[in-house]
Amino acid sequence: MSSGRFITLEGGEGAGKSSNLQWLAEQLRVKGHRVVVTREPGGTVLAERIREVLLHPGDEPMADDTELLLVFAARAQHLEALIRPALARGDWVLCDRFIDATWAYQGAGRGLDAGAIARLEQLVLRDTHPDMTILFDVPVEVGMARAGERGSLDRIEQEDQAFFERIRACYRQRAHQQAERFRVVDAALTLEQVRAQLRPLLEEMDQWP
Amino acid sequence: MSSGRFITLEGGEGAGKSSNLQWLAEQLRVKGHRVVVTREPGGTVLAERIREVLLHPGDEPMADDTELLLVFAARAQHLEALIRPALARGDWVLCDRFIDATWAYQGAGRGLDAGAIARLEQLVLRDTHPDMTILFDVPVEVGMARAGERGSLDRIEQEDQAFFERIRACYRQRAHQQAERFRVVDAALTLEQVRAQLRPLLEEMDQWP
Repeated sequence: MSSGRFITLEGGEGAGKSSNLQWLAEQLRVKGHRVVVTREPGGTVLAERIREVLLHPGDEPMADDTELLLVFAARAQHLEALIRPALARGDWVLCDRFIDATWAYQGAGRGLDAGAIARLEQLVLRDTHPDMTILFDVPVEVGMARAGERGSLDRIEQEDQAFFERIRACYRQRAHQQAERFRVVDAALTLEQVRAQLRPLLEEMDQWP
Repeated sequence: MSSGRFITLEGGEGAGKSSNLQWLAEQLRVKGHRVVVTREPGGTVLAERIREVLLHPGDEPMADDTELLLVFAARAQHLEALIRPALARGDWVLCDRFIDATWAYQGAGRGLDAGAIARLEQLVLRDTHPDMTILFDVPVEVGMARAGERGSLDRIEQEDQAFFERIRACYRQRAHQQAERFRVVDAALTLEQVRAQLRPLLEEMDQWP
């Protein structure tokens, strides 16, 4: 039995991750892979309950540490109950946001302590790291305009533009520093132009042992 | 303005913490202190929502890491939204379970990694530590019989006897190792006999600068 592969999609608001996630899953299924499509925070019933607390905390201001710990609590559940079992049985896992989103949103966005994030990353991920991370990179104004068209913004999306600029800068820096894992897609282009950038990545995956 | 004091009550199931917590609060109020009575996990609206996930996770088995991270997420919120503000304005905080419960239940009970608990303790507590911790110590059989009389057991209380023996041993060991902070009450005795052990502790608090 071949071992599974773990592919994560990252990017700011309105980058087009979600629609391309489904398309990538279809392409991989056509190639004969069993594919599990999931997302963070969430991905299991229990992790989605934690997501609900994160995105709709109510009137009580959420402490920064609480946000960080809830993100990793949901991730620990997602890894244990869904991602690791899927990889163990040889499935491919496509995940909409993963660890890089924590560095971007909680680290660069909210300015939470990098040492704390690093320790939680080590505690929770252990040996489960993405084989490839596709960064959908888009200028903040373009992404925000697209996200605004989708209707009401949740708690995270209501932050100001400087917050999203820090997130984008963090994503781009990580992609630069970890070039062996990251592939960057110019997501400001049309859907067809974005898919033209994704096809070579699918061919690259075909070459994986 | 005098600074507040932070007192935690610890112990296994059926040790009588909750009824004595209210009594202690009354005694302290008679002495002229403003007293906040709270509990963990929980203590604020948001932290109680996290408690609800912890105690009633549904059908999906909760990963050990998830349990640990949710406990500390609730604690971070409790500290930031309730405990630290109360102490800063000079109130006394009486808390039903705190950090020692994590060492006892998640550490000794579930066998979670002590290094992980220690790192999370450092991250979340920072400089906020109890001034006194009162351990209500009771043999497991006695405590379980009392808890059983209260009706339905929640998820944690459904563990087997060996689990609770490990918890009791951990509590007693911590009380021995941190004797300057802990006071141990023999909670197998009658309510009046327990209160006779608590009165000297109240007198000890009177001596605090």
